[in-house]
Order: sequence, then C-alpha cells, then structure tokens
Amino acid sequence: MAAEISRPAVILLSGGLDSATTLAIARAEGFRCHCLSVDYGQRHRAELAAADRIAATLGAVAHRTIHLDMGQFGGSALTDSAIAVPTEGVKPGIPVTYVPARNTVMLSLALAWAEVLGAQDIFLGVNAVDYSGYPDCRPEYLAAFERMANLATKAAVEGRPLRIHAPLIDLSKAEIIRRGLALGIDYGLTVSCYQADSTGQACGCCDSCRLRREGFAAAGVADPTRYSP
Amino acid sequence: MAAEISRPAVILLSGGLDSATTLAIARAEGFRCHCLSVDYGQRHRAELAAADRIAATLGAVAHRTIHLDMGQFGGSALTDSAIAVPTEGVKPGIPVTYVPARNTVMLSLALAWAEVLGAQDIFLGVNAVDYSGYPDCRPEYLAAFERMANLATKAAVEGRPLRIHAPLIDLSKAEIIRRGLALGIDYGLTVSCYQADSTGQACGCCDSCRLRREGFAAAGVADPTRYSP
Repeated sequence: MAAEISRPAVILLSGGLDSATTLAIARAEGFRCHCLSVDYGQRHRAELAAADRIAATLGAVAHRTIHLDMGQFGGSALTDSAIAVPTEGVKPGIPVTYVPARNTVMLSLALAWAEVLGAQDIFLGVNAVDYSGYPDCRPEYLAAFERMANLATKAAVEGRPLRIHAPLIDLSKAEIIRRGLALGIDYGLTVSCYQADSTGQACGCCDSCRLRREGFAAAGVADPTRYSP
Repeated sequence: MAAEISRPAVILLSGGLDSATTLAIARAEGFRCHCLSVDYGQRHRAELAAADRIAATLGAVAHRTIHLDMGQFGGSALTDSAIAVPTEGVKPGIPVTYVPARNTVMLSLALAWAEVLGAQDIFLGVNAVDYSGYPDCRPEYLAAFERMANLATKAAVEGRPLRIHAPLIDLSKAEIIRRGLALGIDYGLTVSCYQADSTGQACGCCDSCRLRREGFAAAGVADPTRYSP
C-alpha cells in the first residue's frame, strides 16, 4: 500500500461537480494528486476559484492553473461573448457550448505535466451525460488519446506507459453525486454553471445547471447550489 | 484548382527553418495558410519574431501567437533556465532540449483552431533529423494523433476528417533546404538556435545550430545565419 500511496497522478480539475468527484476517487485510490486547471478564457471563471477550494479541501498535493487563451480561436459559447449560452433546455446534438478540441488540449497539458512529474496516470471527469453531446467525452476517443500518448513521450518510449482514467464515464449524474457524497465531498464548493457570476452563483437554466439540478433530484439529496434569485 | 486554392489549413510555425519550409510547401499545394505559433516560454524567443516575418513573407492569410506557459511544468532546457542547453554536439538518445509533450500540445491547439476555421488539414515541420531523438516526431506518433483527432472533434463526427501533414518527415536537412530554396524562401529570416539572442543571432554550437549548419554545408549553399562572433 505504501508504494501505491506514493504514486503521483495528474487530475484535470475544472471546479465543477464531476472533476471534484474524480479527484476524490483518485485520492481514495491512493494517488498523490496534482491538480491542473486551465484558464482557457471561459466565461464561467468562478469555476477556477472553486477549483482552488476543492483542491485544498480534497487533499491535493499541488494545484496549478495554466493560462491559455482559447478564446482567440472563438467558436464556442463558453469562450466567445458574442455566442449566447442556451437556456431553453438540453437539446439533441453537439451544443454551442462545445469548445473545439478542449479535452484534447487539456489532456495534452496534463500529459506534459505528468511526464515532468514522472506520473503515469491522468484522471478526468468526463461522464455518460457529456458523452451524449461532446465527441471528446466518448470512451473510444479516450482510448485513442491514450494510444497516442504512449507514442508521444520519452517516458512511454522508455517503458513507463500512461493510463487515462475516466472513472465517471459510465455513471449518471445522480450516481456521481452519490459516489462523491460517500467520499465526503461538499458540493457547495463546486461550480457547474456555464454563466456563473463572479461569486459562483448559478443561473439555474443553462444545460449544465439543468443536468446538475436533475442529478441532485434523482439522487434524492439536497442541492447545495446557490442559484440566482 | 479554384476549390483547392480555397481550402484552409493550419500550419504550426515556430520561426525555424523546418516550419518555414513546411509553410512554403503548403502554400505551393494551394492551401490558404493560417499560421499558429506558440509562445510556450521558450528561451529562444527570437524565433517568435522570426515567425511573424516568415508568415508575412510567405503569404500566410493569418498568423496567431498563442501564449502558454509550459515553463510552469519545467523539465526542459528550452523552458527551464536552470537546465543548460548542451553545446558539445549532437548525442544519441532523447536530449534535454526535449519539451514534454510539446508536439501533442501544439497539434492540439492547431486542432482547436482548425475546427473553428473548418480546416481539415494541419501541417507541421517535423523531420527525419528530429525523428532520431524526439518521440513525438515519429510517423507512428503522427498517425496516432490523426486517429485520435478524428474521434475528438465535431467536424470529424460530422464527416469532415482531419489530416496531419508532415511533408519533411523523410527529408534530410540538406533536402529540406534545397526544397525551400526552390520555393523561394529567404532562410536569413528564420531562427533555429535554441539560445538565439533577442536579435536572432545564433550561438553556432547548440544541437539545432549544428544540424542547421551541417544542412547548409551538405546542400552546398551559403548559410545566411547570423552567428555570434
């Protein structure tokens, strides 16, 4: 167990419900958790402050926020203020909140840090709900990223392969919430809203708020989210 | 030919000899070239100014430099001032100038921009010389990145697959230089040195300078590089 405890991992931590749960799971599995947040120009910047609180509360050994202006490229409601965040309910298909290549960029940055740390494990909180709309949340995508990563790095070439962990991939929002509560997470610290205000107060009507609210309802537990009046 | 001319591509442009040649090749193939440079905290920042000159001279329709502090992670002589750039000659194995996951991060950013532009083609200037030392310059790595990218994006899911072009992959430095000269490149605009000074003057003794100098000698053409006295 001592050897297991000493293994480092990189956890992609957005500040939302899913990545907080993923961090708690990685900790429970005995990893020394190095959390990486990406300030990519997202409009819901309150999630970055949430990530700080979550990393500290859930026992991360390190937390870094890397700045990267994805907004330069545009093309997403999350980075382009000219594109409105939809608030009418979750629709079929890939939504305008999709950020081009976001998970690929974030996993690449996690890969860079993992290689420097000598970590062979990267955790990210993609799940079955995201899967329905975002192409880079699918299991076949994650498997392809892992194969690519194992050809990309000095570590892999020298026989230390990398593993991508997506422990939430097959869970519903309600199952994620139950798992996290069992691990002691205070979900009041997390921010999921795509247009949260600077204090982390949620709109209650974007897709992310809707999925989160439905998750708490389905899990049969109180929703600690602070919604706008 | 008109349809071919109108196709957009993203070109990773470092400001060095290889990527300048790659841009000239992409242009010659009829692509509308959108050049992407990454300010990743490299010590040879003169290459970024070189990238500006090259993009303008070689007819790029756009050039963006995205800032990303890879130096936060450390682990490379190119981003960590505490690690010296080797100057004793090219050695076997992966050198300390290797930047963890650099090509993966840069290709990911190129993928993001390509998706927003509706571009299905990404060019990068990796070549046979790099291939000998850097794992993320190998053909099998590039093929794996392409497979991953084609599962990652909305464009690919909707039937517009992405292609990674590495037109220099099998060329020697001398062959690259001859190809570029035939396409009219002024290599005096490019900066390859890992520790170039702020004016772009090269040290003449790092691996990159050695490979470049040997390339001009092998090609039998004058080397326009400005070396330190």
